Amino acid sequence: MSETYHIVPEETHNALVVAAYRHRGYTEDEANDAARFCVEAARHGIRTHNAIKALHLDHLFGSGSGGCVPGAEIEVLSSRFPAATVWNANRKLGQSVAYRAMEACMEMADKYGVGVVSVDNAFHYLWGGGYVMEAAKKGYIAYTNCTAALAEVVPFGGKLPTLGTNPHSWGFPTMDALGYPVVIDWATSVVAMGRVQQFKREGKALPPAAAVDADGNPTTDPAKAVALLPFGAHKGYGLSLINELTAAFIGGSLPTLRSRWADDGDKHTPNFFFQAIHPEALDGGDFARGRTQEENLKAVLADLFQDGNANCILPGQIEAEAAALSDRHHGLLFSRAEIEAFNEIAAECGHPAWDPSAFATT
Amino acid sequence: MSETYHIVPEETHNALVVAAYRHRGYTEDEANDAARFCVEAARHGIRTHNAIKALHLDHLFGSGSGGCVPGAEIEVLSSRFPAATVWNANRKLGQSVAYRAMEACMEMADKYGVGVVSVDNAFHYLWGGGYVMEAAKKGYIAYTNCTAALAEVVPFGGKLPTLGTNPHSWGFPTMDALGYPVVIDWATSVVAMGRVQQFKREGKALPPAAAVDADGNPTTDPAKAVALLPFGAHKGYGLSLINELTAAFIGGSLPTLRSRWADDGDKHTPNFFFQAIHPEALDGGDFARGRTQEENLKAVLADLFQDGNANCILPGQIEAEAAALSDRHHGLLFSRAEIEAFNEIAAECGHPAWDPSAFATT
Repeated sequence: MSETYHIVPEETHNALVVAAYRHRGYTEDEANDAARFCVEAARHGIRTHNAIKALHLDHLFGSGSGGCVPGAEIEVLSSRFPAATVWNANRKLGQSVAYRAMEACMEMADKYGVGVVSVDNAFHYLWGGGYVMEAAKKGYIAYTNCTAALAEVVPFGGKLPTLGTNPHSWGFPTMDALGYPVVIDWATSVVAMGRVQQFKREGKALPPAAAVDADGNPTTDPAKAVALLPFGAHKGYGLSLINELTAAFIGGSLPTLRSRWADDGDKHTPNFFFQAIHPEALDGGDFARGRTQEENLKAVLADLFQDGNANCILPGQIEAEAAALSDRHHGLLFSRAEIEAFNEIAAECGHPAWDPSAFATT
Repeated sequence: MSETYHIVPEETHNALVVAAYRHRGYTEDEANDAARFCVEAARHGIRTHNAIKALHLDHLFGSGSGGCVPGAEIEVLSSRFPAATVWNANRKLGQSVAYRAMEACMEMADKYGVGVVSVDNAFHYLWGGGYVMEAAKKGYIAYTNCTAALAEVVPFGGKLPTLGTNPHSWGFPTMDALGYPVVIDWATSVVAMGRVQQFKREGKALPPAAAVDADGNPTTDPAKAVALLPFGAHKGYGLSLINELTAAFIGGSLPTLRSRWADDGDKHTPNFFFQAIHPEALDGGDFARGRTQEENLKAVLADLFQDGNANCILPGQIEAEAAALSDRHHGLLFSRAEIEAFNEIAAECGHPAWDPSAFATT
C-alpha cells in the first residue's frame, strides 16, 4: 500500500459508530450490530461498505428517508415448512436482520441439513459477503442474495434500467484447507454506479459493455452513461433476474419502485434470501484414497491451484489478507480522507473528533 | 429457420433411442428415461444435448469407457438430515438419476420447504436445464449444478485447465405469469470446447477472453486454443469454483482426474447437486396492492419488461418457442444431417433405418 493508513483501534471505531447509530435513533442492539458489521467490513478491506458508507446509505435510503425504521421488530411469520421461514423485517436495520437470519439458517441446517430464511420489508444489508463469511467460518455452506436499492441495470437486450445491481454471495467452509473461507461475492452489473461517477471525475473510460447511454446504446463515456449493464451478457442478466424473481415470490413489488419513496400505497422495500447447508448433509462418505471430507476438499483445492495456477487468487483471499494485516496492526486501517469522513460523522452526532496524530500509521 | 427440418414423430424417435440404449446394455427403465430426456431436449431446440449427442457422450465417457454402468442401482445413504439426502449413483445413467433426484427434492420441499439431493459417483446428466424446467413446470423453484466431465477451463489468473465447464441451472415457476418457466441454464466457460473445434473448422475467430494457448495466454485463434476461460473474468470463475467445491464436499476427487479413467484406485466420477424450494415457503403474504404471489410475479415481470425492454428475451423463452413449434408440427424437428446421424445409431443397434422421405418437412 503506497498510501499512509491510520491504525484505529476497534474500540475507538465502535464508540463512534455506535454513537452515530444511536444518534439516528437506533437501539443499542442495532447500533452494536452495525458496529460489529462495520468492523468486519473495514478489517477485510471492504472500503465500499465500511461505516462511512453504511451511515451514508442510511442517510440516503434508511432512517433519513423512511427506508429503515430504528427499533423495528422482526416478525417471524407462521409457516408449515420447518426448514424455510419467512420474516417480515418491518424495515429493521439490515445488518441486525441479516445476522439473525443467517443464524436461523444455521440452526435449521443443523436439524434438517439445509435452512432458508426469506425476508420481506427489508433494508440494505450492505455487504452480503460478510454474512456468508461468518457462516462459513462457523462451518456452513452459506448463500445470500438481495435486491439492490435502485433499478440501475438494463436487462440484456433492453434499453431501460429495471433491474438492481443484485448481488450474490456464497461462502464455503474452507478454513482447514486454506486458513480462510472461500467467499464468492459480487454484484451482477459490470461496475457499480459509484464507479461510473468516479471514472467521470477522473476522466477515465469505462470498460466496454458496462454502461448504456440515454438511448440504451453501450457507451464507455462515463459522462454519457445513464444506466448499467449486467456482466457476462445473458449470463449475468440471468443471475440478476434470480434476485428479482426470488424477491417477487417473497413480497417485493415493482423493481422500478424500489427505494423510490412515495405515498402511493405500494411497497418500496428490497428483499433478502438466506440459505445455509450443513456440510455433513452433503457428505457421501466415499472419498478417494481414504480421505476425510476435509482432506478431500484440501486435495481438490491443491489440484485446482497446482503449479501453473499457483498465482491464482481465490475468492475471499484478498479479504483474508486484509484481515491478517488489520490483525497484525491491532486495529482498523483507514486513509486520512476516511478519518476526515469519520470526523464529519462525529460532528453530526456530537461525538469527540478523532485526532489523526493519536493513531499509529502504516 | 432457413434449413429444411424433418418432422419425426416422438414414437419413431423413441423406438430408435430405446433400442440404442437397450443395445448398449441399459435396462428398459433407463432406456425410457433416456428417450424421455432426449425428446425434451429435441422439443426445446437443445441440439447440443439431443439423442445423437447423448449417445455420443455415452460412447466416449459412459458405457463405452466405464463412466456409466447400465443397470446400476442408486443407493440412498442414511442421513440424520431430513431435508438433505446423499445418493451413491454407482454410475447409473445420469438422466435416470437426475429425474429421481429432482423428484426427491420436490417431495422434501413439500414437507420442509426446501429439499436437497447430492449425488456421488454420478455420470453426465447432459442438460441441467431440462430437470429444473420440469420441476418449475410442476411449481417449484429448482436448481442444479454438476461438475463437467473434463477439466478444460483455466481458473482466472492461471495457466492450466483444472476446472470443468461446470454449468448451473435455475428454474422458476412462471407458467401463470409467462406461459413458460424461466430457465437460466449455462456453462461457466465463455464457449464449449466443441465450439472451439467448430470455429477451427469454419476458420472463424473466437470471441476475446474465451480461450488460452499452450502458454496460458488468451487467444482468439481456435487453432492455438488448448483450454477455455470462464465467462465474466473473476465472476464466472467463482461460479465454476462453486461446482468444484460442492463436488469436493460430496465425494468428488481431483478435478483433473475426472473422466480420465485409469486403474489407479482413485475416483473419476462427476457429482450432481439438486435443490427444490416450495414457493409457498418464500411467501411473505404481504404483496403490494393486494396481489397474490402469482399476480405479484406477473406484475414484477411486466415492470422488468415494460416498454423499452419489450424486446428482451427471457431465459427459457427460446426453449419455450422451440417447444411450441415442435408441438405445432406434432413431432421433433431434425435436420437432414441429424437424420443421417440417427441412421448411424440405427445401424449400430440393428434398428430399421429412418427413411427421410417418410417424414413431413418444414
